[in-house]
Amino acid sequence: MPREHWTLEEFPFHPERLLHLETLMTLGNGYLATRGSFEEGYAGSMPTTMVHGIFDHAPGMLVPELVNAPNWLPIHITVDGTPFQLVNPNDVSLTPKEGALLGYRRVLHLKQGVLRRECLFRAESGSIVRLVFERFPSLHDVHVLAQRVQIIAVDGEPEIVVEAFIEQQVTNAGVNHWTAVQSGSENQVVSVQMKTGQSGYSLGMASQLVSQTPVEIVMDSAQQRPVMRTSFKLNREESAELVKLSAIYTSRDVEHPLNAAVAKVYEAVATGYAKLLHDHQAEWFKYWDSSDIVIEGDETSQFALRFVMYHILIAAPRHDDDVSIGAKTLSGLGYKGHVFWDTELFILPPLTLTQPALARNLLMYRYHRLAGARNKAKANGFEGAMYPWESTDTGEETTPQWSDVQPDGSRIRIWTGDSEQHICTDIAYAILQYWRWTGDDAFLQQHGAEMVLDTAVFWGSRVEWKAEHNRYEISQQIGPDEYHENIDNSVFTNRMVVWHLGAALKLLDRLKAHAPADADRLTRALDLNPARLAKWNDIIAKMYIPFDEAERRHIQFPGFFDMEFIPVPHYQPRTASVQAILGHARSIQTQVIKQADVVMLMALLGDELAPHDVLVNNWNTYYPRTDHGSSLSPAMHAWVAAMLGLNEEAYDEFEHAAAIDLQDNKGNVRDGIHGAASGGVIQAVLFGFCGLKIDDAGQLTATPRLPAHWKSVSFTVYYRGRRRHFTVRNPVVETPLA
Amino acid sequence: MPREHWTLEEFPFHPERLLHLETLMTLGNGYLATRGSFEEGYAGSMPTTMVHGIFDHAPGMLVPELVNAPNWLPIHITVDGTPFQLVNPNDVSLTPKEGALLGYRRVLHLKQGVLRRECLFRAESGSIVRLVFERFPSLHDVHVLAQRVQIIAVDGEPEIVVEAFIEQQVTNAGVNHWTAVQSGSENQVVSVQMKTGQSGYSLGMASQLVSQTPVEIVMDSAQQRPVMRTSFKLNREESAELVKLSAIYTSRDVEHPLNAAVAKVYEAVATGYAKLLHDHQAEWFKYWDSSDIVIEGDETSQFALRFVMYHILIAAPRHDDDVSIGAKTLSGLGYKGHVFWDTELFILPPLTLTQPALARNLLMYRYHRLAGARNKAKANGFEGAMYPWESTDTGEETTPQWSDVQPDGSRIRIWTGDSEQHICTDIAYAILQYWRWTGDDAFLQQHGAEMVLDTAVFWGSRVEWKAEHNRYEISQQIGPDEYHENIDNSVFTNRMVVWHLGAALKLLDRLKAHAPADADRLTRALDLNPARLAKWNDIIAKMYIPFDEAERRHIQFPGFFDMEFIPVPHYQPRTASVQAILGHARSIQTQVIKQADVVMLMALLGDELAPHDVLVNNWNTYYPRTDHGSSLSPAMHAWVAAMLGLNEEAYDEFEHAAAIDLQDNKGNVRDGIHGAASGGVIQAVLFGFCGLKIDDAGQLTATPRLPAHWKSVSFTVYYRGRRRHFTVRNPVVETPLA
Repeated sequence: MPREHWTLEEFPFHPERLLHLETLMTLGNGYLATRGSFEEGYAGSMPTTMVHGIFDHAPGMLVPELVNAPNWLPIHITVDGTPFQLVNPNDVSLTPKEGALLGYRRVLHLKQGVLRRECLFRAESGSIVRLVFERFPSLHDVHVLAQRVQIIAVDGEPEIVVEAFIEQQVTNAGVNHWTAVQSGSENQVVSVQMKTGQSGYSLGMASQLVSQTPVEIVMDSAQQRPVMRTSFKLNREESAELVKLSAIYTSRDVEHPLNAAVAKVYEAVATGYAKLLHDHQAEWFKYWDSSDIVIEGDETSQFALRFVMYHILIAAPRHDDDVSIGAKTLSGLGYKGHVFWDTELFILPPLTLTQPALARNLLMYRYHRLAGARNKAKANGFEGAMYPWESTDTGEETTPQWSDVQPDGSRIRIWTGDSEQHICTDIAYAILQYWRWTGDDAFLQQHGAEMVLDTAVFWGSRVEWKAEHNRYEISQQIGPDEYHENIDNSVFTNRMVVWHLGAALKLLDRLKAHAPADADRLTRALDLNPARLAKWNDIIAKMYIPFDEAERRHIQFPGFFDMEFIPVPHYQPRTASVQAILGHARSIQTQVIKQADVVMLMALLGDELAPHDVLVNNWNTYYPRTDHGSSLSPAMHAWVAAMLGLNEEAYDEFEHAAAIDLQDNKGNVRDGIHGAASGGVIQAVLFGFCGLKIDDAGQLTATPRLPAHWKSVSFTVYYRGRRRHFTVRNPVVETPLA
Repeated sequence: MPREHWTLEEFPFHPERLLHLETLMTLGNGYLATRGSFEEGYAGSMPTTMVHGIFDHAPGMLVPELVNAPNWLPIHITVDGTPFQLVNPNDVSLTPKEGALLGYRRVLHLKQGVLRRECLFRAESGSIVRLVFERFPSLHDVHVLAQRVQIIAVDGEPEIVVEAFIEQQVTNAGVNHWTAVQSGSENQVVSVQMKTGQSGYSLGMASQLVSQTPVEIVMDSAQQRPVMRTSFKLNREESAELVKLSAIYTSRDVEHPLNAAVAKVYEAVATGYAKLLHDHQAEWFKYWDSSDIVIEGDETSQFALRFVMYHILIAAPRHDDDVSIGAKTLSGLGYKGHVFWDTELFILPPLTLTQPALARNLLMYRYHRLAGARNKAKANGFEGAMYPWESTDTGEETTPQWSDVQPDGSRIRIWTGDSEQHICTDIAYAILQYWRWTGDDAFLQQHGAEMVLDTAVFWGSRVEWKAEHNRYEISQQIGPDEYHENIDNSVFTNRMVVWHLGAALKLLDRLKAHAPADADRLTRALDLNPARLAKWNDIIAKMYIPFDEAERRHIQFPGFFDMEFIPVPHYQPRTASVQAILGHARSIQTQVIKQADVVMLMALLGDELAPHDVLVNNWNTYYPRTDHGSSLSPAMHAWVAAMLGLNEEAYDEFEHAAAIDLQDNKGNVRDGIHGAASGGVIQAVLFGFCGLKIDDAGQLTATPRLPAHWKSVSFTVYYRGRRRHFTVRNPVVETPLA
């Protein structure tokens, strides 16, 4: 981490971290994102460009997935006939046929949204060139994709050949979604158009190579694609600059994506690289002007915080309110681009506070999918809107029912799509949080309220009255602790349903008072008749909330404490989960939990959940049972520990959360950024360490409970349309000793 | 780097960094040092313990080397019959016969001089144990080596067997130095004694395993060594603690090393681990109380600074003034433990300023080797004392004349032992620097002056009078820039000889005034007759200092600028040297320099060398020609750049220097810490960034020229016996942007 705390640097080349860094160095502009793959390719690399909203359900696949778009990166350079490739890294003793990589540095500039790479390369001829690659997908004009290469002849007088093209033969890890692929060229521009096989989205991409030397377009008949080609000789110390400008549109944007892409390339070439870069950077500076959080006293955390915010910003749709952010953002194929609760409860709050327009886009995605949610409720025999656990473009439930085939040939039944129904309250929570922060009454009245109320209708029909106990119950649930599936009376779900119904009733009252027309409209449309509302009140009064009166603590679900106790802290220092260590069959019979339902409740409801002593008992009970088997877990624990004044635990969990992607200790970052962990890190700082909240009087307040060695945290938030800048100082700073 | 900036952490296990971390995690106490190898061993590991002063010249070897001592680390543990070893790291899906490593964390605590390692391990039986290893070679009693293992039964009820022993079959990368190896045991103690084959040093090591369960000593007949063995069963959640205490003496310390070692083990066992640890830590805290340098505003640099100071402190002889620090400290086999100019000009100054007693030990090492230096002068036809370029225990020149056999079967002639004669002025410089800082007149009069004056006698006989030019010259030299060998009139050497003779004359005047008896004694002993002193004055007046009057800059040596110019900055981002890239044969015909002779002159002589404009011209000339092919180079450049107000360049080179061992970008840290780079980093901070110096009036002054983002630097130095604590603040702090 260099001094700026704004850059992620790789020096020298670390092939063993190829896929990890390819994910970390993803660029994006809220329309698409592209992994940090090399222009010249590399064996084992996973170049991926994903465009928001372009899902497809391929034959033989259980569910649809976000589709890997054509690759706009390829620029192939030969030096005196030797192809530039990262072979024999840093072994200068060889001058093999393939050339030798003499030097390498790659830097992701978070502040500017730019990826730069410098390579020093020796051809078989002995000529040495320095190559400086730079690229960005424009944040100013999201359809523009810009690349630049500078080639400096350091030694020798090399003959340079540059070939640039669009890679159209792209798959999702071998699964092909594209049909009707047609490439072409006209004037100086090459292009491709293609269509997803099942969903029928069409996509057009076009590209031009700009050089001071003539560029010819030749047909690569083997690959069926046109290639832009130029060549020149450099004298020693001479340099050349090449620019490749590409553009992309889909049928989600315009009727004729190909034509739009070609036109956009002409426009971008006319604008020129320098101005494109300037405009792009200016947009990034605007983002950071609101979203940067400055920590004084902890440089590692400072960088980590900017890193997670960057990854949320590149994934957040900018001009589109009909798409949302998948669990792995747009940075990898993991979870197939599907949208989970991760978005609403983890990723969204940092945007709600610092970029409310982007937060609104994400909530509108859910609004546009009310029909799918109503279908799911109906299909399951319920009323109202029942949002899917995994969501794509259609709004239908897209959680696979079965896992991929396991090593022993079996498939495991996946229950989350059936039973992780708390997604409905999660969305309601996010909507009301957005509204409380932004004061966006228009959104609430026109869109938000309908979602909150219709998911409440669902819960009203979902709960089960148990006359023998004189209480409502909910059976067959999965809470955040996904190790224990299909349990009855999950304290998380039951308690959040009470919160949800209470919030829905208050919301309806507010609408009646302030927006009677909307109240009437929704009352009619959702059939919010007095009997229904009376039932909601009854549920609030009589819902079963598992609680141990003797120990004064919540019970995750009845029977939880009857299972075997495993002291999770003894399983340190581990990188694998305790579940993996004990094995699935045994661990589900124990009190080891993936993440703490009760801690999550404490994060969401705070003091509203219970008196302070109960919160402390809850922490002391569940913390030593928590495996953090989910990347979502540590940040929430950091937040809650800070809230409870547990400074050490809070910082430990914060460090854990902040390292998930940067350190890749579990080895799965290759599949994409952990979006929820990213958002959780920011919430741990703002809500946990800074104690930022809206008090009962509607005032924005902060309560510093910073890690002992932090001096201050400064940040900007929007509150009811006003920009507010805070510096939260630690009244006592402790310099840690060894 | 965790929040404390006092610890180096490995998490999880990184087998690809095994040898790098084994070097970084070396422990030491100034008597010996032991690499961070594992108690249980690991394939490809290089466990090494080196004891100061124990050199041996094995048959067939070109030169003597510091000998790898017996390994005191082995503790082998089996869990239900499965040997604890780091196999299948972090792959929990397997339960192979060899067991599985479920978790791993290793932490070097710089402040305490302690290495800790935690491992979570599953045996084939399914039992899981947590193992916590801790070790240190005592700084309080340097003959004591302490280890502790805690074993916690996390799952299952494992049968534990612990075997501890001394590994006596040790070599220097296959070269055997030990003869007459005899192991034995008595009561609870196992022991070994052995003798170096050529030099005849004997060494005794003894060890006892302390357990709450009975320890038996069994003979491992295959390995011809006694093994201490204990076994026990643990219930789930139960834990056991084992302590292994060892001791070591050599014939450099006592007449009967074995007896002394055995007695020391008994004493250590009686003292107990807890008190040994406490006393050890207390000594470390004393070290840091004087040697810690605190940087505000740059946590990465803060950690790097502590790291380099730690490695100097563990290598610095504490109770011994007859040994010195080799180029790779005691942390690896590189450079065979030989002592170069690295010690006097790079490693020593941080000790001179913060631990003057340790600095004195190192200078006394040279005093005790005056005979060797006089032999070398005589053998080469000169007068006085000519210190060897590479020095061991004997004081004779031990630079190999030939390289090891190259891949093509050839050997390369090594000229440094013949021609890098500036070592004589380097030692004189260090002595006078020590005296100026400490005011240690006793040392100067009794020991230091003799070295300064007799090396001056050497130079008086070494220079060559060229009547045709009416000047003195020196032919066939190698300066710091070792790319250009056996050149005539190296500006570095010629100018430093002028400085040396001037300093010698001043010193003699001072002795005559303040210590006439010593002046008389030395005048007689070294034959400092008037003619000789007159010649010194003549040399000072008429030495040829290559200088370009038109360009107003120093010339590294006549003819330098006639060679091919290579723009070194274009060869970025490289990890290999430009020399390696261009090849030896070509690079020596170019202006590419390994490190800048002229920049080194500027560091050593400052304003005394030339007016400011010349210093700036020198920098601008040599900086773009410098390859930094030596690890000594970047720190000196940082210092000089800071001195010239070149803030950016200064910090770039400082970062470069600070990363040499921590980042291991050249991949050679496996052979040991770069001691000179370590000392250079500290000098760059104190002399460069803080501008610390003794002014002409003998006042200690500081001139802040800190990196733009540093807020302050605080440090303690001894000046003329008084502890002085400074905080140097940056009057303007710049927060870097992206």
